[in-house]
Parts: sequence; C-alpha cells; structure tokens
Amino acid sequence: MDATVFQNISPLDHRYQVSDPPLAAQLRRYLSEDAFVRFQLQVEVALTETLAARGLCSTAAAEAVRRAAAAVTPGEVYEEEQKTRHNVRALVNAIRERVPEEARPYVHFTATSMDILDTARALQYKAVTREVLLPRLGRLLQAWIDLARREAHTLQIGRTHGQHAVPVTFGFAVAEYVARLGERMERLAAAAANLRGKMAGAVGAYNAAALFFPDPDAFEREVLGRLGLEPGEHATQVVAPEYITDYVHALVSCFGVLANFADDMRHLQRTEIAETGEAFDPQQVGSSTMPHKRNPWNFEHVKSLWKTFMPRMMTVYMDQISEHQRDLTNSASSRFIVEIAAGLALAAGRLARESERLAVDQEAMARNLALTRGMIVAEPLYILLASLGHPDAHEAVRRLTLEAEGSGRPLVEVVQEHEELGPYLARLTPEQRQVLADPQRYSGIAARRALEICRRWQDRLAELVRQPAEG
Amino acid sequence: MDATVFQNISPLDHRYQVSDPPLAAQLRRYLSEDAFVRFQLQVEVALTETLAARGLCSTAAAEAVRRAAAAVTPGEVYEEEQKTRHNVRALVNAIRERVPEEARPYVHFTATSMDILDTARALQYKAVTREVLLPRLGRLLQAWIDLARREAHTLQIGRTHGQHAVPVTFGFAVAEYVARLGERMERLAAAAANLRGKMAGAVGAYNAAALFFPDPDAFEREVLGRLGLEPGEHATQVVAPEYITDYVHALVSCFGVLANFADDMRHLQRTEIAETGEAFDPQQVGSSTMPHKRNPWNFEHVKSLWKTFMPRMMTVYMDQISEHQRDLTNSASSRFIVEIAAGLALAAGRLARESERLAVDQEAMARNLALTRGMIVAEPLYILLASLGHPDAHEAVRRLTLEAEGSGRPLVEVVQEHEELGPYLARLTPEQRQVLADPQRYSGIAARRALEICRRWQDRLAELVRQPAEG
Amino acid sequence: MDATVFQNISPLDHRYQVSDPPLAAQLRRYLSEDAFVRFQLQVEVALTETLAARGLCSTAAAEAVRRAAAAVTPGEVYEEEQKTRHNVRALVNAIRERVPEEARPYVHFTATSMDILDTARALQYKAVTREVLLPRLGRLLQAWIDLARREAHTLQIGRTHGQHAVPVTFGFAVAEYVARLGERMERLAAAAANLRGKMAGAVGAYNAAALFFPDPDAFEREVLGRLGLEPGEHATQVVAPEYITDYVHALVSCFGVLANFADDMRHLQRTEIAETGEAFDPQQVGSSTMPHKRNPWNFEHVKSLWKTFMPRMMTVYMDQISEHQRDLTNSASSRFIVEIAAGLALAAGRLARESERLAVDQEAMARNLALTRGMIVAEPLYILLASLGHPDAHEAVRRLTLEAEGSGRPLVEVVQEHEELGPYLARLTPEQRQVLADPQRYSGIAARRALEICRRWQDRLAELVRQPAEG
Amino acid sequence: MDATVFQNISPLDHRYQVSDPPLAAQLRRYLSEDAFVRFQLQVEVALTETLAARGLCSTAAAEAVRRAAAAVTPGEVYEEEQKTRHNVRALVNAIRERVPEEARPYVHFTATSMDILDTARALQYKAVTREVLLPRLGRLLQAWIDLARREAHTLQIGRTHGQHAVPVTFGFAVAEYVARLGERMERLAAAAANLRGKMAGAVGAYNAAALFFPDPDAFEREVLGRLGLEPGEHATQVVAPEYITDYVHALVSCFGVLANFADDMRHLQRTEIAETGEAFDPQQVGSSTMPHKRNPWNFEHVKSLWKTFMPRMMTVYMDQISEHQRDLTNSASSRFIVEIAAGLALAAGRLARESERLAVDQEAMARNLALTRGMIVAEPLYILLASLGHPDAHEAVRRLTLEAEGSGRPLVEVVQEHEELGPYLARLTPEQRQVLADPQRYSGIAARRALEICRRWQDRLAELVRQPAEG
Repeated sequence: MDATVFQNISPLDHRYQVSDPPLAAQLRRYLSEDAFVRFQLQVEVALTETLAARGLCSTAAAEAVRRAAAAVTPGEVYEEEQKTRHNVRALVNAIRERVPEEARPYVHFTATSMDILDTARALQYKAVTREVLLPRLGRLLQAWIDLARREAHTLQIGRTHGQHAVPVTFGFAVAEYVARLGERMERLAAAAANLRGKMAGAVGAYNAAALFFPDPDAFEREVLGRLGLEPGEHATQVVAPEYITDYVHALVSCFGVLANFADDMRHLQRTEIAETGEAFDPQQVGSSTMPHKRNPWNFEHVKSLWKTFMPRMMTVYMDQISEHQRDLTNSASSRFIVEIAAGLALAAGRLARESERLAVDQEAMARNLALTRGMIVAEPLYILLASLGHPDAHEAVRRLTLEAEGSGRPLVEVVQEHEELGPYLARLTPEQRQVLADPQRYSGIAARRALEICRRWQDRLAELVRQPAEG
Repeated sequence: MDATVFQNISPLDHRYQVSDPPLAAQLRRYLSEDAFVRFQLQVEVALTETLAARGLCSTAAAEAVRRAAAAVTPGEVYEEEQKTRHNVRALVNAIRERVPEEARPYVHFTATSMDILDTARALQYKAVTREVLLPRLGRLLQAWIDLARREAHTLQIGRTHGQHAVPVTFGFAVAEYVARLGERMERLAAAAANLRGKMAGAVGAYNAAALFFPDPDAFEREVLGRLGLEPGEHATQVVAPEYITDYVHALVSCFGVLANFADDMRHLQRTEIAETGEAFDPQQVGSSTMPHKRNPWNFEHVKSLWKTFMPRMMTVYMDQISEHQRDLTNSASSRFIVEIAAGLALAAGRLARESERLAVDQEAMARNLALTRGMIVAEPLYILLASLGHPDAHEAVRRLTLEAEGSGRPLVEVVQEHEELGPYLARLTPEQRQVLADPQRYSGIAARRALEICRRWQDRLAELVRQPAEG
Repeated sequence: MDATVFQNISPLDHRYQVSDPPLAAQLRRYLSEDAFVRFQLQVEVALTETLAARGLCSTAAAEAVRRAAAAVTPGEVYEEEQKTRHNVRALVNAIRERVPEEARPYVHFTATSMDILDTARALQYKAVTREVLLPRLGRLLQAWIDLARREAHTLQIGRTHGQHAVPVTFGFAVAEYVARLGERMERLAAAAANLRGKMAGAVGAYNAAALFFPDPDAFEREVLGRLGLEPGEHATQVVAPEYITDYVHALVSCFGVLANFADDMRHLQRTEIAETGEAFDPQQVGSSTMPHKRNPWNFEHVKSLWKTFMPRMMTVYMDQISEHQRDLTNSASSRFIVEIAAGLALAAGRLARESERLAVDQEAMARNLALTRGMIVAEPLYILLASLGHPDAHEAVRRLTLEAEGSGRPLVEVVQEHEELGPYLARLTPEQRQVLADPQRYSGIAARRALEICRRWQDRLAELVRQPAEG
Repeated sequence: MDATVFQNISPLDHRYQVSDPPLAAQLRRYLSEDAFVRFQLQVEVALTETLAARGLCSTAAAEAVRRAAAAVTPGEVYEEEQKTRHNVRALVNAIRERVPEEARPYVHFTATSMDILDTARALQYKAVTREVLLPRLGRLLQAWIDLARREAHTLQIGRTHGQHAVPVTFGFAVAEYVARLGERMERLAAAAANLRGKMAGAVGAYNAAALFFPDPDAFEREVLGRLGLEPGEHATQVVAPEYITDYVHALVSCFGVLANFADDMRHLQRTEIAETGEAFDPQQVGSSTMPHKRNPWNFEHVKSLWKTFMPRMMTVYMDQISEHQRDLTNSASSRFIVEIAAGLALAAGRLARESERLAVDQEAMARNLALTRGMIVAEPLYILLASLGHPDAHEAVRRLTLEAEGSGRPLVEVVQEHEELGPYLARLTPEQRQVLADPQRYSGIAARRALEICRRWQDRLAELVRQPAEG
C-alpha cells in the first residue's frame, strides 16, 4: 500500500480508497483533480477544432492544440498557477507553451474561464454517471431483482410502526426497493443527460465571440456539439445553476433509497428478529472485545454515508444564488460536488455486494409471522364482517383483540365463542373462510406484484446501464 | 381585524396572513387544516362511489356518503378524535354518523388511513400548485418578461465578482430570470402532475381489497382515476416518498430563483449603485429613526423567506427513510410541507408586485457603465490582438491596464501610445474598431437574446398557467 | 372548539394547538404575535423610564408611556402598519396616540427599531425558556429520574448495532438520557441567560444617544438593566448573531436527546422485542383498519417533530451573515424561531406524559436476555483468559462462538469440552467464575452508576427549574 | 509537486493541499489518517501504563507496548484489517505482533474499540484546536485588531439594507469582527476543552473492567488523566454525542463570522464602492479573458468554504441519535468531521493573509460618505427636534427628505428654508449644531468603542492562543 494515502485528510482519499481498490481506481479516473484537468483540456480542444472548422484558424493549429492537450499534466498546470494565480489561465499557458507560435492566439480564443470549467464539469458528471454510477446502481438493482424474485413467495409479516401488521412476502418488501431505485436511476440518467455546457463568454452575452461571428450562439452549439452537450437557454458567466441542482438532487434522493434499504436490513438483522443477516467471513472480527458479535456494519455504513452526503444538498441550493452576472462564492463549494458522486458510488458498491450475498432466514420469518398467534386476522375479520353488513365491525373486532390479548388465546378462538358473530361468519366464501383459518395467507397480491415489478425493471435495466468501457 | 389571529404562533398565521388578505384567503382554501379535511372527504367519497360502480354497495349508499362528506366539519372530526385518538378513524366515524346504517360498512371499506391521507395530500398539492402557485409565479414571470422587453436595449455593465466586467443590457440580465423561472415552473408543474395516490391497504399489498376483488390494483386505479390521480408503482402503507421529494425539490429550487433575483435587485439598489429601486409609497416609513431611508425591504423579505424555507428540504430527505412497511416518523413532519408552498406563494406575490413597479434608473446605469473609463475595452482588445496573431495578447493587455490604472487615463488612450500595437490595430474591421472606440457597444447579442427568451416564455406561459377558478 | 383554528396553515396553530390546550395557551402567552408586541412595549417603557431617571423627560411622561403601553393592542399596531409600512414605527405611533403631547417626543427617543425588536426577542426567549421550556423539560427529566431509579436493577441486554452485546440494566439505559438531558438543560439555561439586548441605535455606534449623553453605552446598560438584560460587546443595527445562534443550537441539540430516547422506546416496543410500550387507552384506535394495532405513535411523533425542527438551525447559521451594519434578510426568518421553541415544548410535553406512564415488561427483558443462550459470556471469557495469560484469547473465543453457533449449544457448554482451557479456568476467582456461570450478572456497575446519575440530577433539577408563575 | 496528489478526489487533498503547503503539512500532522492512528496508539499506551501502575501487568509489558506503538504504521494496520475486517482489532494485532508474548494479553485489556476511537478523537480535536485552529484564528484576530486600531478614526458611512444610514468609522466596523471572532474563539476553546474520552467498555457499564477492579470508573479516570482528558457523565458504547456536537457547533458558528467578514469585504470592493480591496500581485491574472479584472476572489473563496462546510452540522445533529447502547451509523460520518476543522483552518489562513495586507481607500470612504449630500443629517435632525419638543418630528423630517430628494438639494439647505423649525434649531447646543452642519461627525462613540474592543481582545489573545510547538 502506498504510504502517502494515509497522509490524506478526506476519508474518501484514504479509508474508502483503500477499502475497494478497483472502485477507487475507477472513481479517480473521473473524479480526481487529474481527471478534471483532462476534461478541461477536452473543452479547449473542441473549441480550437470548431475555430478551424469555421476557418478562424488553420487545422494544423487545431491539431497542435489537440496534441498539446494530450501531453499537459495537472502538475504543470498547478506550477503555472503559482505564477498566474488563476487556474484556467494556467491551463491555457500550459497548452500555449506546447504549440507553435502561430497556434497560440487560438488557444481559449473568445472563451472565458467558466466556459471551460462549467463545460468540463458537465462532461465529468455525465461521464461518471454513465460509466460508474449507473453501472454500480445497476448491479445493485439486479441484486435486488434477483432477491425479490427468489423470495417472491416467502411470507413475512408486514411491519408498520415496528409492529406486526398483516403479511406481505419478503420479495414484495424487496420489490419496493426495485421500483424506487429503478425510478431514481431513470431520474439520475435524465438529470445527467440534461447537464449543459456553455461557450457564451464572460457575462453570457457572447461579447467576445460576437466580434468574429454574427451567430455566436450557433458557434457555441457547434463547440458543445463536439462534446455531446447543449447550452442552457441563458447563461451569465456561468451555466444556470438549476441543471446541476437537479443533478445533485437526483444523486441525493437516490442515496435516500439506498439508506432506507440499509436501514430495513439492519433492523431485520436485530437479534430478536434475525430474518436477514450480512454474510460473515469466518475470519472476520465483529467486535474488538465481544468475539460473538455479528454486526450489520455494512448496512450501517451505507446509512452513515447517507448522513454524510445528504446535507450537502444545502450547499447546492445556496449556490443557486449568485450575484449579477456571477460572484465566485460557488467556486470552492462546487469543487466538492464530486465527493457526493463518490459517496453514492461507494454506498452502491457496498450495498450491491451485501445484497448479492444476503443471508435470508425463511424459518425466522415464519416464526415471527406466527408470533402474535393470529392477531393479524383482526383486519380481514373486521372487513369481512363489515362487508356482510355488521353495523360496527371495527369496534367489535377491536374489543375482541383486547379480549384475546387479555386471555392470551388466539383471536380466532375468541371469535368462535362469540355467538352473535355466527350469522355473519356463515356467509363467508370458502376463500374468505380460509384466510380467517390461516391468516398467513392474508398477503393480498404481494407475490404477483413483486414479480411484475421485477419483470418491468429487468426489461428497463439494459437501457439504463451501458456497459462501462473499462474497469 | 380578527383579534385571534395575533394569538397564533406561526408568522404564516398572523403576520403574513394579515399582510396580503386575498392571498391569505386563497392559501387557506387549499392549505389550511379545514382544506385538508375536505380533501380527505373527497377521497372517501371516490372510494364509496367506486364500490357502488362495482356493485359492492348500492348507489344510494354512495350518494349518502357524498352528502355526509359535504356536511362534515373539521371541528366534528377533531372532537371525535379526542375519543379515538386516531384522526382518520375520527373522520370515518364522522361520516358514518351521518349515513343510514346500511351505508356504514362501506365507508372507508378496505382502506387504511394512509390510503386516504396520502391521496388527499396529492390532491391538495396538485390543487394548490395549479390554482395558486403557478398563477402567482406566472404573474411574476409576466412581470419579468415585460421588464426584460422594456429594458432589452438598456446598456448595463455586466458584473462578475461585484466588479465591472463587460456590458450586457438590463433586459438581458432580467431575461436570465425569465428563463430560469420558466424552466422551474415547468419542473414544478411536472412534479405536481407526477404526485400519486394509493388505495393499496395497510401494507401496500392490497390485502383487504383482495378479499373482494381478484384485481384490487385495477380497483385502486378506478378510485384514483375519479380523482385525477394514478397510483405509484409500489406502495407500502404509504406512497413511495420520491414523488413528494421531487415536488418539494421543485418548490425549493424555484424559490432559489426568486431569492437570486431579489438579491440582485437589493444590490442594484445600493446607494452607490442605485440602478433600480423598489417603488416607494409617499406615506411609507423607511426607518423608525432614519427618516431618509429607502430600503429594499421587499427584496430582503423574499431572500429571508428563502432562508426560512429552503432548509426544510432536509426534513423531506430524512422522510425518505421509513422502516419496513412504514414507521410513523414522517407524520408530523409531512404536515408542515404545506408551509413551504405557502412561503413560496408569499414570496412570488411580493416579488411580482415589486417587479411590476420596479423603478429602473437608466441614467444611473449609463453613469456606472462609464465609471471605469473604458477599462472594459481590455477584453475585446486582447481578443482582437490575439485574432490578429499577437503572440501574447493577454499579457500585453494586462500590462496596459496596470499602466492605465497607474496613470488614471483611459485605457484606449494608453493603447494608442504603444506604437508596437499599431500594425495590429490597422487590420481591424470597421465594426471591431467601433467597439474599441465605444466599448459600451461591446454587449454581444444581449438584446437579441433577451427578446428571444421573452418570446419563447410568453408563448409557453399560457400553457403553464391555467386561470384559477376563483380568488 | 373555535372554528377559525382550522383555517390556520401551520400545524402549530391548528393540530398541535388543539392537541394540548393548556400547553397551547401557555405557548401563546410567550410566543404569539400578541406576546411579541407586548415584549416590545416593555422595551419602550424601560426606555422612557430611563430617560425620566436621567432627567431627559418628566416622570409623568414616563408614567403616561407605561399606561399607554399597557393599553396598546397588536390589532391597533397592525392597522397603523397598513399606513406606515413599518412595524415599529406603527408601534411607536400607537403609543404616541395614547399619551399627552408633551410625552410624545420621548417615545422611542434615540432608539432604532432593532433596539426594540432585538431586545424584545431576548426577553421573549428568556421568558419562554424559564417559564415553559425548562419546566416542561424538568418534568421530563423527573420522569426519567423516577424511571431510572425504579428500573436501576432490572437487567436488560445491552444492544450495539441492534445486536445483543452484554448486559446493562434498564435503569442504566434510562440514566443515559437523564445525564444527557440534564446537561442540555444546563446548556439551554446558560444560552438563554446569555441573550443580549441593545440600545445602541441605527448602526450600533450610539449616534443618536451620543447627542444627549456623554456615556450612551452606560445609558444602554441602564435601559437593559431594567429588563434584566445586558448588551453585547459590539452591535451593528442588530445584536451580534452568535447569542441567538447558541440559543437555537441549545434548543436543537436538546431536541436531539428527546428524539434519541423516543427512537429507543419505539424500537423496544417492536413486536419481537416488546420490552416497553406506550400506555394505551382502552378506547383508543391503533389503526383505522387493523383493530389489533398498538403503535408507538407518541414516540414516533417526537422523532417526527425533531425532523421538522432540527434543519431550521441552517436558517440560523445563514442569518449569522448580514451585510455591513446590517441587511434585513434575517427579518422574516428570525420571526420563525419561536416555532422551534414551540416544537420543543410540544415534544417535551408529549414525552413527559408517555415516560411517566411507560409500560415496562421486565419479563420480556429477562426473556430477551436469555435469547442467545449465554453467547454474551464470550466477552468476559475472552478477557479472563487474556488476564490469565492466554496468548490469543480473542481469537480462541471467537472460534468457540462459531462452534457454539454451529452446534446450537450454549457457549459455556462448548467451553468446558475444550480441555486446553482447563488450566486457565482453574485460576479464576469465585466472582469471576460466577459471571461465567451466570452471564446475566455481567452488567458491570450499571445499577450503581444509574443511581448516582439520578441522585446528581435530582439535586440539580430544583435549581434548573423555577416553578412557572402560572399555567 | 507529487503527482499522486492529483489522483485524490477531495479538494482538501489536492487543490487546498497544494495551495498552502505549510498549512497542509500542519493539518496532515493532526487530521490525516496517519495522525488518527497515532492518536489511537497513544490511548492504547495510556491504557497499558495504567494497568501497570495498578499492578495488573508488569511495567516491562507497558514499556514494550509503548515501544511497539511508536513503531506501528497505518499501512500495517490497514493490511491487518484486510484480514480482520475490523480496524481496532487490526490495530491491536499490529501492536501485539511487536511485543513479547507475556505482554500481549494486556494490549487493549478490558477495552472496547470505541474506548480507543472516541478517546483518540477527543485527543485529535483538542490537539488540532490548540495547535492549529486557535493559532490561525489568533493570527486573524490580531490582523483585525491591528486593522481596527489603524482605522479607528476613519469615517465611513454606516450601511443598513445596503443603503447609506449614518456614519461609523471603518475601525468600528472591523471591531465588530474582533468582538465576534474573539468570543467565538473562547467558545471554541471551551468546547474543545470539554471533549471527553471513555474507557467504559462495550456498553458503557464497565462490564469487563469490573471483573478486575471494584472501581472501574476510577480506573477510567486514571487512563484518561494520563491523556489530559475526563470521561463523560454516562457512556454507552460511545461517549455521549453532545460534547462533539457543541464542538462542531463552535467550529461552524466561528466559520460564520469569517464568512460574514469576507462578505462585507467583497461588497466594499465592488467597483462602485471600492473602499477596500484585496492586495493584488502584479503577476496575477484576474480573469482568463478580461485582463483588467481585480476580483475579491480570496474573500469569495472564504464564503464558498463556509457554504461547503456549514451544512455538515446537520450530519452531526443526525449523529446525536444512536439506537440503544449504540448503532454504528455514525461511524463513516464521524470520520468526515476532521474535514470541517481543515476547512476552517484554510479559511482562517486565507483571511488572515488578506486582512493583513488589505488595501483601504480612505479617500473612497470620504467620497462615498459625501454621496447623499447630507441626507444622513435626517436622523440627528429628527431626534434633536423631538428632544426640543417638536410634536411630530419624525414625520416632519421624513417630508423634508422627500423635498430635498425631489429638488436635488442638500437636506440642511432645505431645512433652513422652513421657518417653522427656526425656534427649535435656535435652542440647540453648539455640539448639536455642529453635527447638523457637518453630519459626518455624527458617528457616536464609534472610534472609542473600536479601541476599547481592541484593547480587551489584545489582552485576551495571549491566553487564547498557545504558540504551536512547530510549523
């Protein structure tokens, strides 16, 4: 292990970099400062190429810029910045030093720094979304689809307020997350696709470009088109902030779905419930002092990451406000947005791994389901009585449950002693009667619904996730 | 004025209710507790009507429920809740007391509380969006369109970092907000349209309804269809939280656009800048002790409301997490979401009024534009020199600006003394030369762009805003 | 019930006002707009009285102002504000109209609006803290002290990560909250005591007062002294924001302790754990459709209120920033701070009531403690082996637990089969041996610690809570 | 420059590490993962030493542990963690491998992981506060004291709502920040001093230690005493969260003071105001395209860092809630707290440097003060008239200001035309008359107050800031 990594301050750059090296490598490829400089270079290249296409400069000049851009390193840029105290000017100088004199004027020609930076950010977020986030989330979605299908018919008590309510199936419970995650992935893909670039100059009015072109907005479209981007409808020095605001909202609200699943799993792993459990490596230590512990620490970790990154949305909302044609108070803060993407990628990776190997204890589910000795029959009983015209079915059944609870006997038994209910019960259909006899069957269309949801998202998954080119 | 209003704690229920009585009345119609109870009653009615349509109960029973629902008051419901300690059971009892005995079993039949409450919330937010928010925001958008058109050609110095940059037009600066607000209104309309209801029972698996229908999900669609709603793809006891999360994000991110405009205006009203100003009533007092003050207090108010309501998005993100088939820890918190809508309506109303009567001082704009004695020519000069092959134009011009600053002379004058620049300047086109001579012309396509944006949003505005039925 | 209450938008002004009428009445007395106007009037009175004491005006004038202030109503002030568009000028006019002409000049003399408003806020927050919050929290603290004492020796399994760890006592678990709440109450009392007023004029430099007094800062101390307040070290138009920031931090961080307790209780009430439960009224309805449900809804409610109010701290942090001698963008937002106090009072009241009547099931605690069949002996076993020189005790015991788990037998049994451990076990003291035989005794000094904490806070409680004068 | 730094994701670990190498080195010494491991090792050493002091193990064993701890590297620990999947167990193993067999059992003896981690965090935060934060903030405080003293008598218009109000002095305006920062530094020092450690075992009840000591809480005090720490009043597996909550509140609320100063400075640097300016290096580039720009980018940077780190307080508030004797959902999140300290250190360093070399343009201040042609006389005029018995002075002066504004003449001139005011004006004292004649004198006790505040904080500064040992 590289010793310098432990000299870093951010856990993203030491602990979480060390914990999953392939993911760390992949994230670095898109989210590191090195990567960001490379995205900026792409924008400078597209600019000069468009100038050449319009005849403003020679194709040789554009070619020289392309070659220079491939060679520039962030270290060089940072060294130059020591002098200029301006990061994009430093980048421009680094390119200029590597091109023939006649090409130099066309580097960054008519552009302002934020044309480069905002466009590079859009490229960066789109790339990390397409190449890292959606594939990682896709693996998670697949794990949940597989789990929901496998457990589609496994009865589990439904819990509301932490109390036993009426049955569902475990697959149905997991299908909730399939549906919610799938929907969020679509939102994330849409928000990433809607990110915009700009090439509209220092105050967004194309002041410089208009000196050379009668149609500087068409010129902007050409530059951005080479990068697969569109401009916003209006820009100041910067792209209108709502595109990125929506994008981070998509990240953060997707994170919430992961955190909710993690929370459910860690509660289902409680010693008294024990319906699910994280797979446990035989060598693994649960506690430094309690050798018997098996903690849901991965699920806890995901919840903890959510708590870390979710509040950062506030920064993004604050950054919607920029004075006049722009103040710079979003400059440092926007540099930290990459961390949110990294956090979500980490959480998705961790959760996918644990979901794939989740231990499900169907026996425990059955045992818990039986725990209230048929008290869950209260709901169908009340509704069936009501449907047969009982004038006050809810209140009648509520009293029966108190009686059952008081005497410690199954509710169905208590019911049969109440002769006044006989006439109603006699009119039940066989299927209805069966539900009362075996309340565990009272799971509605849980299994069917789970399978439908899985089918739908299995179909959409391929569209959502493009296989990443590498890593 | 009703004295009891001052007994209220929330400024929404005293100060801001008093400050704009028509808006207050309109908001009460959608956002008060009274209104919410009425939305709940609509859902109960739709449920019984669907039961009747499917033959589960008589049309007379459904009709009786409809009449009863029209008569029930929140006061009644709250009194009943003193007994039941359960708000929806109280509502159901209040209806049941007003219908014949044979109709009673069909009130709330197969439904769980959250079927009613979540569906009622969707109705409520859709209604307030359509009837209050979009019309109010539409009035604001119209005010900005009018302002941007009127000032499309008014030159104004563009400001980045609070420093003079290069010129725009004031209409172009306002067009930024036209584009951003229009886009947010579309997002808000879409998010409201995407709100969902449910009729899927206690744990979302249609357990109760499945006792009576083989297709309880189709039954749900019928009930919701009567209310203009659709179900989510999956429900637990509650609708999946992302629909409402997106809706509040739309509210909050729209609020940010208003706050940004307000911030710009209050800065432009600074004594030293004085390019715009709030209209001032001759009777109005600016300060209790400084009789000469004319403060941008309405713009400050809008910024302040944004600071009040924006952080509440955190609550909504926290409410994405609910354990298993639901815990109730989103119950109180979700009751406060109506306040965010109220806050946005207040801000939009205030800002529309001030935008309509904004004082614009074109003379001050011209005076400020001239303030740096032509220093803004630096950008076109550098770019033109570069375009003509000057090998280090940016650095050359940077030094000229230092020289101009040091000597206190206009930059153009200093330029002309530098003979080494002569050969470049000689090759300028007449239009380019004109920009250097009169740098205030250097405003790119600001005016054209402003008018284009206004035209586009004027067209879309009618679609976005349905005239409210009343108030 | 008053019908107009349901016309309100904020749940604080309808639902939560209706749910606890005595608390609502008490909160109105301090937190309503009516109350705030009365606090402002107190400040105006103190100002004129100090002027009289210094001979600037007659005592008759001061007396007239006092009488007028007693008569002014918020309704009057608001009507006047329709004209002046300035709330404090309206207040001043309302007083002036009720005093003889010679007294009029001395109303608000040398003061600026914020001298009145900020000072009134300090009075208001101090009063509500002393008269409502600390007494309510004190009742809660007492309930927890009583509970912790009663259950000081009740063994309960300690849970970390939701997993059984090693035993504590339930009283020890509750003592955590005694200690944390007591400490937060001290912090809250200190933060309230540290709130400051001001009488330093429009920009904080005593410009106006310095026209009349050589020692305007001493004058300020005299005015504030009459109100039991001190000035800050420096003011602009407003009091430095950190005093109120600390106060709201105290509210919010105290709220977190309540939310944590509520969370613990609702989890302990889970059907599978069932160690505690909210008292349940026989008439109460748990679910509109599941008549058997007994939900921890009060505990959920407290958590939900915390989620509602906690993020509002962000607003307070944003309000730390005010431009130059002040901008007004904290005006609306600071009006909402009273809501946070109201929310905490509601939560404390609810939690106190539920804590006083909490159902504790000691049998369930014993049953759960036995659930892992002695696996909790792993920790003392490992430590004892280590203390006796076993070279790798943790690893050895970890393997034994896997063996016990695999075979389904108690860990102690498995241990005895491992002869290599015999020599170590032989050297245990009788007390140590006893812990291994009966691991439930392995609760450290939990009981003693619980009682110590209760004793300490019982002593401090009387100092912290002054009995409220009324209500 | 080390190339790997650009492979990092967090700007803290690339951009801001590169921008100030000495600060970066200092921060790494306290906030890196390497540093955190070293703090953990200190705790393990203190534990074994206390065991030796109590005779549980030999002093040779304790000495061996001390030597081992000095040699262990984070890399080793992380490699071991690959096996154990438990970070503290890995640390323990790393020490154990380096000590003789007889010492091994006493490494980590009776401790649980969180005893080590929480105690190490307290050490870390105390150290970084004492050695980095307070010295950096102290340098800033000194810069502001120097600035306030130098400019104590420089007249400047006071601005409220961005509007000219009445005069202060620039030193008085800076003294605001001296007072606020000084007070926050005291709060920060107090919060750091109040951080607690623990050695209370797996659930806080001293279960393991009680097997060996009758007074395990005294044992805890001894261990922590060696580290300069105290325990909290109650612990679960972790230290009660309020200590750290208060600490981060102190960081964040201190950050707000820096952001407010930065905001004021960047507004005073606006082209139209131009009263202050960041020092500008002749080689520096203001804009990549506008060579004339001189942006307040350091001040903007500080505001931006505040926006980045302030919302993270929400994470800390969420982490107040931990289930039962602890869940682990604060584990990842609490690792990021070091970043907040790093952010504050960066902002303080940047702001100190800029404050020390701030350009103050006293001429511009005088020019701006004269801008409203004496309109600021309105306040003293109104108050003096009132003091002389004018029955409606505020309204009379308000009308005069409208008249002056309408006619474009100085207010004093207009006043003299109003004969009805003559009798009042005749009774003014010479000093009062002077203020009306030269309203710029109307600055109250601004200068005196500024100097008093500076004197007070100059005295306290030495106490607050201990000179850091190095770097």
